[in-house]
Amino acid sequence: MDPSQVTIPPLKDLTIDNITENVVLINSANPNERFKYILERLVHHLHDFARETRLSTKEWMAGLQFLTATGQICTDVRQEFILLSDILGLSLLVDSIDHPKPPNSTEGTVLGPFHTHEAPDMHHGDNMSQDKNGEPLLALCTVKDVNGKPIPGVKIDIWETDSAGFYDVQHADREGPDGRCVMRSDLDGVFWFNAIVPIPYPIPHDGPVGQLLLELKRHPMRPAHMHFMFEKPGYDHLITALYLKHDPYESSDAVFGVKNSLIVELGKVDKATSEKYNVPEGTKLLTYDFVLVTDQESFDLRSKNSAAALEKLGRRVKIVEGLPVPELD
Amino acid sequence: MDPSQVTIPPLKDLTIDNITENVVLINSANPNERFKYILERLVHHLHDFARETRLSTKEWMAGLQFLTATGQICTDVRQEFILLSDILGLSLLVDSIDHPKPPNSTEGTVLGPFHTHEAPDMHHGDNMSQDKNGEPLLALCTVKDVNGKPIPGVKIDIWETDSAGFYDVQHADREGPDGRCVMRSDLDGVFWFNAIVPIPYPIPHDGPVGQLLLELKRHPMRPAHMHFMFEKPGYDHLITALYLKHDPYESSDAVFGVKNSLIVELGKVDKATSEKYNVPEGTKLLTYDFVLVTDQESFDLRSKNSAAALEKLGRRVKIVEGLPVPELD
Repeated sequence: MDPSQVTIPPLKDLTIDNITENVVLINSANPNERFKYILERLVHHLHDFARETRLSTKEWMAGLQFLTATGQICTDVRQEFILLSDILGLSLLVDSIDHPKPPNSTEGTVLGPFHTHEAPDMHHGDNMSQDKNGEPLLALCTVKDVNGKPIPGVKIDIWETDSAGFYDVQHADREGPDGRCVMRSDLDGVFWFNAIVPIPYPIPHDGPVGQLLLELKRHPMRPAHMHFMFEKPGYDHLITALYLKHDPYESSDAVFGVKNSLIVELGKVDKATSEKYNVPEGTKLLTYDFVLVTDQESFDLRSKNSAAALEKLGRRVKIVEGLPVPELD
Repeated sequence: MDPSQVTIPPLKDLTIDNITENVVLINSANPNERFKYILERLVHHLHDFARETRLSTKEWMAGLQFLTATGQICTDVRQEFILLSDILGLSLLVDSIDHPKPPNSTEGTVLGPFHTHEAPDMHHGDNMSQDKNGEPLLALCTVKDVNGKPIPGVKIDIWETDSAGFYDVQHADREGPDGRCVMRSDLDGVFWFNAIVPIPYPIPHDGPVGQLLLELKRHPMRPAHMHFMFEKPGYDHLITALYLKHDPYESSDAVFGVKNSLIVELGKVDKATSEKYNVPEGTKLLTYDFVLVTDQESFDLRSKNSAAALEKLGRRVKIVEGLPVPELD
């Protein structure tokens, strides 16, 4: 920014008590109303955090060094800041805010850091896992709207770990994607595939986030689960996962993702199912009926929740491109 | 952490409204009381920030990517997170909290990202700048206590940019430290040196922080200044800087560091001074009397301020190793 083109209120002699309003003031030339609002809240919370903890210079520096290390361990296939957000409950919170679900629809949960954009397209019945050590699993699922009507042509992204508890991208020597696929629902909203039974596994804990968990005396384990992501124009993007009942970490997920409505008990393939789907009788069976909400339903619910939340802050709100911005008087 | 050794309350079905208390709960096994308190406030503010802004998944991801880029541009000689803290006013705030100054002492200000630990020891009268293009400056200073008594043997770290507005570490081809030195006050609390007149300069703005300033329509300039850091056992560590009067950025410092008490007007070396200090008559002259507070004074003031701040939050406080921790009832 050319300094001569910037108008700034005089900022001098800032103190513990007046610095916040002044930083907000200098940031208020931001022409993007939404971004301006976000920065205003960020500066308020950041400063209140320092004032309430009486943060010391040493602690401040330790925090900056932690953030630096978190950034520096990130690679194309490892996102440590998502992990950090996950273990602080922020990821689940943001998903809950951005994708509110009416009671009769499938709940969302954390995306996690291992979704990729290289999953192969597969047909119904294909096997998404090449892991010979995994316990075979047949998954029979549907995707419908809140009125029970099948939704055809939904793009479904599915991913899980191998039998050792690692995603494909965690293997340095991998040759290509494994344990992940993309498929589409048919005219009856059905999609089905072969996979392996998921197992509990630790989130990557050899970096700064693992060190933090250790200091907090928290374990890094996630209960066994399989990730699903649903996309179709007109429907709210659903990021979710199914969790296996009776998992030892069912109620202590390191990233807070478990919801009762997403816990499934695996069954076993019976004779008729075995013949129909061409898998051995007794194979583990996962069934689930996913329910999507429309963009409009989601938008309305999100806007209503936003208005209520900002009203609690004493601010009237307008919705700009689907997101709240305080109304100026 | 061995999962079997961790006791965790059941965490499931977390919502926008109950996730915060549950994340705080799971973090509460942390045996370090001070760290536990910091984490508790961090989680509260982080979550409130998301709730109050109704942070979207897209914005959340943009934020994580910004933090990742900020971490990845850091090197041994560039600390982008300090810059980020500086332009958000956090650095000045933390210094004000951690190093409160009674009215009759020298105020502190931002450290900035360019202090190093490789400055050469110099004697009084040495020239700390090898830059032939800079305007010569003679600096005559003292360091005293609040009663006006000289403090001998104070370690003083001094650093400034070259005449082009860059610190030595910003030159990839530098051969060694320049524009910085460490000296000690004599028995009269005096220290003096030759340097160059500082000039205004932009903070490094070719990275994520520069991009942010651009979006906020803020300029990256700092008014001309020289950094000073004072250390002596028994005295509170003083990080400060002197700013030149009439600088065009005097009241719009990108990092909020300017305080009226730290603004100096340069004089000119007269005949007597010229002869005494062996510099040409008319050379620019900087004089300043720094005043340090004792560790005890600083500790007492910090503790008093902490107790008052936590009382405002409705918490009784105890001081553990100089830092506040809420008292459990």
